Amino acid sequence: MKHLSILGSTGSIGTQTLDIVNNSPKEFKITGLTANKNIELLKKQIIEFKPEAVAVMDKKSADLLKEKIDIDVYSGIDGIIKIAKLNNSDTVVNALVGSIGVLPTIEAIKNKKNIALANKETLVTAGSIVMNEIKKNNVELMPIDSEHSAIFQCLNGERIEDVSKITITASGGPFRDYDLKKLEFQCLNGERIEDVSKITITASGGPFRDYDLKKLEKVTVKDALNHPTWKMGNKITIDSATLMNKGFEVIETHWLYGIDYEKIKVVVHPQSIIHSLVEFKDTSVIAQLGFPNMKIPIQYALSHPKRFISNSKQLDLMEIKNLTFEKPDFAGFPCLKYAYDSGKIGGTMPAVLNAANEIAVYAFLENKIRFLDIPKIIKKMINGHRTIKNPDLKQILDVDKKIKEETKKIIENKDY
Amino acid sequence: MKHLSILGSTGSIGTQTLDIVNNSPKEFKITGLTANKNIELLKKQIIEFKPEAVAVMDKKSADLLKEKIDIDVYSGIDGIIKIAKLNNSDTVVNALVGSIGVLPTIEAIKNKKNIALANKETLVTAGSIVMNEIKKNNVELMPIDSEHSAIFQCLNGERIEDVSKITITASGGPFRDYDLKKLEFQCLNGERIEDVSKITITASGGPFRDYDLKKLEKVTVKDALNHPTWKMGNKITIDSATLMNKGFEVIETHWLYGIDYEKIKVVVHPQSIIHSLVEFKDTSVIAQLGFPNMKIPIQYALSHPKRFISNSKQLDLMEIKNLTFEKPDFAGFPCLKYAYDSGKIGGTMPAVLNAANEIAVYAFLENKIRFLDIPKIIKKMINGHRTIKNPDLKQILDVDKKIKEETKKIIENKDY
Repeated sequence: MKHLSILGSTGSIGTQTLDIVNNSPKEFKITGLTANKNIELLKKQIIEFKPEAVAVMDKKSADLLKEKIDIDVYSGIDGIIKIAKLNNSDTVVNALVGSIGVLPTIEAIKNKKNIALANKETLVTAGSIVMNEIKKNNVELMPIDSEHSAIFQCLNGERIEDVSKITITASGGPFRDYDLKKLEFQCLNGERIEDVSKITITASGGPFRDYDLKKLEKVTVKDALNHPTWKMGNKITIDSATLMNKGFEVIETHWLYGIDYEKIKVVVHPQSIIHSLVEFKDTSVIAQLGFPNMKIPIQYALSHPKRFISNSKQLDLMEIKNLTFEKPDFAGFPCLKYAYDSGKIGGTMPAVLNAANEIAVYAFLENKIRFLDIPKIIKKMINGHRTIKNPDLKQILDVDKKIKEETKKIIENKDY
Repeated sequence: MKHLSILGSTGSIGTQTLDIVNNSPKEFKITGLTANKNIELLKKQIIEFKPEAVAVMDKKSADLLKEKIDIDVYSGIDGIIKIAKLNNSDTVVNALVGSIGVLPTIEAIKNKKNIALANKETLVTAGSIVMNEIKKNNVELMPIDSEHSAIFQCLNGERIEDVSKITITASGGPFRDYDLKKLEFQCLNGERIEDVSKITITASGGPFRDYDLKKLEKVTVKDALNHPTWKMGNKITIDSATLMNKGFEVIETHWLYGIDYEKIKVVVHPQSIIHSLVEFKDTSVIAQLGFPNMKIPIQYALSHPKRFISNSKQLDLMEIKNLTFEKPDFAGFPCLKYAYDSGKIGGTMPAVLNAANEIAVYAFLENKIRFLDIPKIIKKMINGHRTIKNPDLKQILDVDKKIKEETKKIIENKDY
């Protein structure tokens, strides 16, 4: 039985995670939950899942909740970190949105919790730090994203022939708890990460796949929230529409699997049936497929190394009939290019990419800027930043804070 | 270094296997070769690869060859078996065509050779016997077919949670040399064969995918030899055109992976890019992809558990643009149905299916019967046979011989 704390339990990933817990009550126990300020839903979750403690980011909402229930209620980022560290949990599901997820993740890792990570800004902002802590504390990092779950499954049973390469593969994912003896056995079975010649991430292309720049100019918030294949939270839906989400996934793939950016490709695949592909050096390609349904990767992140039965719809290729693939449009969707660029530059640059994007996306959601202003603003912030090589956590968090403030300023002043 | 004997070295799979040996001279040494009667090509292969002995099925050709070279030249089926048993080889590549492959395979296994199996009639005719010998002699059976290679790769690193199930998974394929301790470790990684809910084999549909019965009536040998995606030998190309080849693959999949026929599906996929798919109980699907190129599965069967670099064309989905899927046409191509039926009946029935098919295909290639006579003849032979349950090898070989004679007779008498 796994003891879970879910950070962001009232959001899209959080509620789906609780559905999965509900479906397998013998496999999971909920230890802690956190919400931003939706205390009505959180209260219902408390009654149903009986966590020992919860946290609410918004102080006032936390105080209101305290009056209604008699378990520990913490507040603010310190409260979320407390839930991330709870003694009785072994696994933390990070379903937070934004770089606010960095510190709770790191504190959870330091307290030997396994991480099921949906919060992509964590690896984008502080990939090197997080992967280092994962390795140091010998815990497991399971991706919740459908793409990274696909890659993880495609690499299942992979082979580490050269033990000097453990650094790559022990850095989270499939090999985290293998000692040398087990690694030797691994050599009898499956693939080597060194044999991987290419990883291809599929992108639905979002709601504006066929739009030219003129049409993109006029995109409204409502248009952008209407994703063709994936039902998700607001922030990530906008990131999908700009293709920044795909850019984040490229950076995450780099950190999760230790793969050079040159070997990570993005292909637009509107049906969202193939979730990712891994090519090996003999040109053989392994892919993971399924109907678009976040519950599958969430469940797999929690059930691994087992699989649990799912009542989700089974893939029937004869019903689907047609899978199509296109080149991504880097000109209309420059965020994808900026993500590759900042990933390759490294250091604090991906943190800048994420911080500027976070502020710009919320400004768009509040109708303060237009859709095509998002990449403009990000470009300006990236161009104005000189990356700090090998930053420590404090430097990353300082950059995150500073860039967010500066981005707010240039949006207020319309200076982009 | 692997020491290979190749049975059928002058055919399509045989010559491609030698190309692979040529590309990785440090990995492979050729111990023995066999041919049907193409001694010109065999002589060239002898000079280039320096085997210690060869066999030629045709006695006259063998005698002719003996005069030209000074290594051991054996002849007939006994000669081929001698090559299959050569002391210095560790792996036998069976690229023979027809049920003639059964005995050499069994003799090779009994002599502790690992088997790389392209000859699909072996498992169709004598699946239970072969798998039993594989298990008893603790040798490896690697499939060379692109579909079974795909399934094998999709199952890579799979998990055996319940040790009482070893019978299934030890019966060749990924788990052949795992002792209990290793099996326990396996539980930490990958999938369980019990978790597999479905295996889907893709079929190009052959050259007559869109033909109705009227058009199928008029199909010529030349039409049938013109396969749209795979370049192969004559017998298997006709089997592909009738979809019997796909039926054989269904039966092989049953034996290779111990999967019920109900869980094995066939989908027509004209581009031949996805080679097979495995669905797990959480509805997640793993697939293996690549351009149609037999060298990849041949090389993988020989390089496993490693992968070698291949100079084959790399898959580019943006270039392919479109993958399509259709239901197979069981009415126009009843051979596929007959294969499922005889597989489910079991016993000697698949041997009947194969023997009747073998004779009918060669009769078609010699213009003695028409294309649509092939399934008619097979149906007649199946309907006239009463299956022997749990047959031993002798019973299977007797049925093979008897059915072939009877099939020849009904073709001569046009009695079908």
